[in-house]
Amino acid sequence: VKALVFRHGEPRVVERPDPDPPGDEAVVRVHLAGICGTDVEIARGYMAFEGIPGHEFVGVVERSADPSLAGRRVVGEINASCGACPTCRAGRPRHCPRRTVLGIAGRDGAFAERLALPERNLHVVPDGVSDRAAVFTEPMAAACAIAEEIAGLAGSRAAVVGDGRLARLSARVLAGEGAPPEIWGKHPEKLARFERDGLRTHRGAPGDDRAFDLVVEASGSPDGLELALRLVRPCGTVVLKSTYHGAAPIAMVPVVIDEIRVVGSRCGPFAPALARIAEEPAFFEALVSDVLPLDDAREAFRRASSPDASKVLFDLRA
Amino acid sequence: VKALVFRHGEPRVVERPDPDPPGDEAVVRVHLAGICGTDVEIARGYMAFEGIPGHEFVGVVERSADPSLAGRRVVGEINASCGACPTCRAGRPRHCPRRTVLGIAGRDGAFAERLALPERNLHVVPDGVSDRAAVFTEPMAAACAIAEEIAGLAGSRAAVVGDGRLARLSARVLAGEGAPPEIWGKHPEKLARFERDGLRTHRGAPGDDRAFDLVVEASGSPDGLELALRLVRPCGTVVLKSTYHGAAPIAMVPVVIDEIRVVGSRCGPFAPALARIAEEPAFFEALVSDVLPLDDAREAFRRASSPDASKVLFDLRA
Repeated sequence: VKALVFRHGEPRVVERPDPDPPGDEAVVRVHLAGICGTDVEIARGYMAFEGIPGHEFVGVVERSADPSLAGRRVVGEINASCGACPTCRAGRPRHCPRRTVLGIAGRDGAFAERLALPERNLHVVPDGVSDRAAVFTEPMAAACAIAEEIAGLAGSRAAVVGDGRLARLSARVLAGEGAPPEIWGKHPEKLARFERDGLRTHRGAPGDDRAFDLVVEASGSPDGLELALRLVRPCGTVVLKSTYHGAAPIAMVPVVIDEIRVVGSRCGPFAPALARIAEEPAFFEALVSDVLPLDDAREAFRRASSPDASKVLFDLRA
Repeated sequence: VKALVFRHGEPRVVERPDPDPPGDEAVVRVHLAGICGTDVEIARGYMAFEGIPGHEFVGVVERSADPSLAGRRVVGEINASCGACPTCRAGRPRHCPRRTVLGIAGRDGAFAERLALPERNLHVVPDGVSDRAAVFTEPMAAACAIAEEIAGLAGSRAAVVGDGRLARLSARVLAGEGAPPEIWGKHPEKLARFERDGLRTHRGAPGDDRAFDLVVEASGSPDGLELALRLVRPCGTVVLKSTYHGAAPIAMVPVVIDEIRVVGSRCGPFAPALARIAEEPAFFEALVSDVLPLDDAREAFRRASSPDASKVLFDLRA
């Protein structure tokens, strides 16, 4: 297969053998694959991953022992767990210490014509959902995890810190749950998108009003948590989505005094994410700014790394 | 009344008018009052509080319109809320923005012969519980809050970071709930107390085993959270009890990747705390190292500030 790898931080298109997985895994012919911030970090050395990156995809099952999957259009959960260790048996397979992660750790990913994943990781895409919408299932699942963090979300006062892609999906989830958030961001042109979605936006630091039941920190910035802690009310919840690296100085005493819950959240449930996408595929299709062939990988990553990027996709059939 | 105040960081015994509170408050004749780390911080300027400190007490109701309280021995919740604001009406009176806090904010405290508190804050002490045990109700309530943070605590693997008084009470609560914790501390002589309680102890940093369902951070030290994050398992809970000040650099990315819940916890429920104390008053009585009259305040604070301090009490009838 034709595939992308990073060498010294630069994307390079190479030829690799077709995936030939064990019996409980399916081979998927990739249609579209999205470039995520994590891919940009992998290019810079994150996870010391040297395989094929890419973990947001939609494709068609070319080979599977499961007749309900063969030939179907699918998206896939990215954590491939062992199923046998104490963590898996305790119901937390996403945290299996022996797991591989598609395009991130120990498993070649979606920036290739074909990939392999366990059959239990795959979800069939409904017919009404285009490839360009379905490719958002993985990031949308991460956003849907927010709704699992607090009971009775409808009617809550919610805020989102950040104005990027994950912030936008998070805001969509909250609005869909009856808790349309206020947005704190830095970039007027990005905030304008939220305003077109009917949401109230703010630039700069908030006052010290501590009024929000739920604050989603999706800024990708070390100062995002501090800002979130100024927004959340006593006994409220901050959902941390930002995976910036390094250690920022954080005054934790307000967390104790105001009895705040700070909940880290990485991945999320695919089924509700697909259901939401099926409700409004046009919203997701409009998030795509570019669709490029793998041969234009350098240009694709350049665009995906720009501050104002919407989603850049690879078309693996081009 | 004879009372203690701080002037330039030093305790001074002064004469003050008797408390003469509004109709829904009771006057309590204080028997014993405990010195807490917060009092030591108040001496150093915390909260810029200039009134009478002290918030751990047991005493007898001298004046109350409530016949079920008059003449009874009581302990008292320290947050006096307005009852009318949105925070109070939402069921979070401990976080009322207009609250006063006994001996900490806007309300004279327990280092005095008499104090005033709203009647609804008072809890009658069972006859079998001595004053020396009952005076631990407030800190024990703070420890009991831990049990409210996770469902199904019995059988969980728990750890406590810290080896001081709050750590010891926290460990007692966890053991009582069927989750005897392992202790990470720094002081051999303090860790020995936990060992006599039948608990396993550790000095120094842990390996990176991330095995504990629940970790209580009660070290009072900025590096306690980092240590707690190395102990907790994916999707586990860290309960933050330490109210150290300042901002420590904390790498939050493991919280996101491992989907950890970090929950701040300050105060707790008095009723279960009193019930636990009634089960084993001797354990609590043995935590007292010194009982001194208010006139020995300087010596009392010196002992309470020493690294190896058990609980130092004022006897307000001496």
